[in-house]
Amino acid sequence: MAKGSLATRGPVLIVGTGLIGTSIALALRGSGISVYLDDISPVSLAIASDMGAGTPLSDLPADAPAPRLVIVGVPPDVADKTILELLLEFPDATVTDVASVKVAVEQSLVQAVQDLVVDGSLTDSAVIDLLSRYVGSHPMAGRERSGAVNAHADLFYGRPWVVVPSQWSSSAAVLRVREMVVDLGAVPLELPADEHDRAVAMVSHVPQLVASLIAGRLTEASPQSLMLAGKGLTDTTRIAAADPMLWTAIIAGNSSSVLDILCELRQDLDSLIGGLQNGTTNPLAPGVASAVSRVIAAGNKGVQRIPGKHGTQPRRWATIEVLVPDKPGELGRLFSELGIEGINIEDLQLEHSAGQPVGLARIQVDPRVADAAAAALEGRGWRIAGSREQ
Amino acid sequence: MAKGSLATRGPVLIVGTGLIGTSIALALRGSGISVYLDDISPVSLAIASDMGAGTPLSDLPADAPAPRLVIVGVPPDVADKTILELLLEFPDATVTDVASVKVAVEQSLVQAVQDLVVDGSLTDSAVIDLLSRYVGSHPMAGRERSGAVNAHADLFYGRPWVVVPSQWSSSAAVLRVREMVVDLGAVPLELPADEHDRAVAMVSHVPQLVASLIAGRLTEASPQSLMLAGKGLTDTTRIAAADPMLWTAIIAGNSSSVLDILCELRQDLDSLIGGLQNGTTNPLAPGVASAVSRVIAAGNKGVQRIPGKHGTQPRRWATIEVLVPDKPGELGRLFSELGIEGINIEDLQLEHSAGQPVGLARIQVDPRVADAAAAALEGRGWRIAGSREQ
Repeated sequence: MAKGSLATRGPVLIVGTGLIGTSIALALRGSGISVYLDDISPVSLAIASDMGAGTPLSDLPADAPAPRLVIVGVPPDVADKTILELLLEFPDATVTDVASVKVAVEQSLVQAVQDLVVDGSLTDSAVIDLLSRYVGSHPMAGRERSGAVNAHADLFYGRPWVVVPSQWSSSAAVLRVREMVVDLGAVPLELPADEHDRAVAMVSHVPQLVASLIAGRLTEASPQSLMLAGKGLTDTTRIAAADPMLWTAIIAGNSSSVLDILCELRQDLDSLIGGLQNGTTNPLAPGVASAVSRVIAAGNKGVQRIPGKHGTQPRRWATIEVLVPDKPGELGRLFSELGIEGINIEDLQLEHSAGQPVGLARIQVDPRVADAAAAALEGRGWRIAGSREQ
Repeated sequence: MAKGSLATRGPVLIVGTGLIGTSIALALRGSGISVYLDDISPVSLAIASDMGAGTPLSDLPADAPAPRLVIVGVPPDVADKTILELLLEFPDATVTDVASVKVAVEQSLVQAVQDLVVDGSLTDSAVIDLLSRYVGSHPMAGRERSGAVNAHADLFYGRPWVVVPSQWSSSAAVLRVREMVVDLGAVPLELPADEHDRAVAMVSHVPQLVASLIAGRLTEASPQSLMLAGKGLTDTTRIAAADPMLWTAIIAGNSSSVLDILCELRQDLDSLIGGLQNGTTNPLAPGVASAVSRVIAAGNKGVQRIPGKHGTQPRRWATIEVLVPDKPGELGRLFSELGIEGINIEDLQLEHSAGQPVGLARIQVDPRVADAAAAALEGRGWRIAGSREQ
């Protein structure tokens, strides 16, 4: 981010200096914006402050200007209370949060505000002002490791960031949050809270649970059968190495949307199991083939809907498969020689066979240059395992 | 394969010149072994023969020596009949097949042999000889595209190849098949048919079906929700782009083992759904957190059991995350500069954000050199999104 080109103006207060909060703070500070920090944990606050993410709220002089924007980066189960306190404390600030579930946070916030009206602490017009200054949000970024120490100013660069206005959010508040999202290099996408929660259940929470369920079955597999594992299994179960605490909080906070999809999935599974039960004595029994092929064909259709590299259907690249001996420097030599040959790589996957001292690099290139590229690599002594369009 | 260093002696007859059969033939021919070819499709046979995979059986002179080894590369549902015909036709040959299910093939073969005894065509001692010469096998190799045109001599290089003796297989026949596996550069692994079928159900067939089930749910997702898809979803559903015909045949032929695991999976899913149903009004209700965390924790354990690169637990590498602008040549420049800097890459993944013109390269390196490598790349103008041990 270049200084001076930003729409966001400070001071910005970040409450909750975990991975997301501290990464936002670092990015804003890097652009010269004044950032205040607060966290219930003095250690986390000290780490973020030492990293140059901003000034602890308690260290500010009495005449420090009030924050224009407050970002709540605390866990979902305490986000509602924190948001309300901050809306009350800073009557001119826009407040957003970054929790990965949105309906639960919005509902609890509205409930808490209504409670204040009932006990006479808030007037109706104060309620309207309060709720107009809150806009939920959810950056689709993160990593396996959490905490301020893993924070990075570029965490959101090029990633979607969902902006979630409620029915009470003012357009000025929505704009202020969108501006911050753009300033951080992320791509704003506006969705109502219920659509957001259904979307992340579909593309993130249910795939996580199902990957964990498949991987969980492997606990009972024999070591020999695991020797037969290939790229299919490792891809399908990669995200099963997830943090149980974090994911329990996320999924518990979105259990309604997650349940809807899991129940649909169970119906699909039931009908597959029903079809297969016809075939345990005869694979050609009626219903077996149709039950299986229906599942595979639906999967074909669904996977084609995932946006590819350029937000469109994945383009067709040619794939060159190169055998890479597992000696130090071989992969580096391959990359170096690809560069020297001027081969423009669109994508690349590495595959290691279990227990084998050789790997396979799948290189995706423009189909028009694939044959020449394969020949050039072969000329440099690489073993080409295959080349095809995909 | 160097000529003269092989244990396998010809002639070898390959029946079924699809991807696997033709790839075996090409590898054997490349080592100077005499190969005969046969296929029910004249077109497939002509392609394989034109590729230099061997001589069509019908073109052989009358005094051509009989094959010592016969490899059956036909689809699983016709493998049993083909194996029996070839055992009868070539009384001195060892016969193996490469079907991806083994119990069904072995059972049908034994049943067909018994039928010949009952109708008086075979004596009991002829049965013992016949079955002693058959050894099932299954190379754990293949690709998205099938057919002779996609065949390649290096298809099996470094891959596991399961050798599946029956209770009647002679040790000489088993040895002959193992020798061929080793000669093709693959790694033999011996398993009984039922263990083989359970193993591939676990590591291949069920993950395929579940990936297809998740992807199938995406057919009903909104385009907005699919914009939020990240690497978790794309990894989990990559294999859902599978051939419905091929997979229907494979899974129908192994429905008993597949069903066992799918039913266990349904139990796990039921207990997860039961736990979540407590939490639709209150995420902190009893049972919610334990149901979710049990699933995630079991997944953690299972995924750790998948053998890594060297057949052991995955080693801990440091990960450097580099932002790669989507301009032609940028990825090549990165690879080239990694080579110039002498950075030894252990593994690498590329991530593209939906609709975004920038990608993320995750580079795994030895933790001891990670900081220096990240600094070197930064010195060359790359934006490092992060660096950490994993």
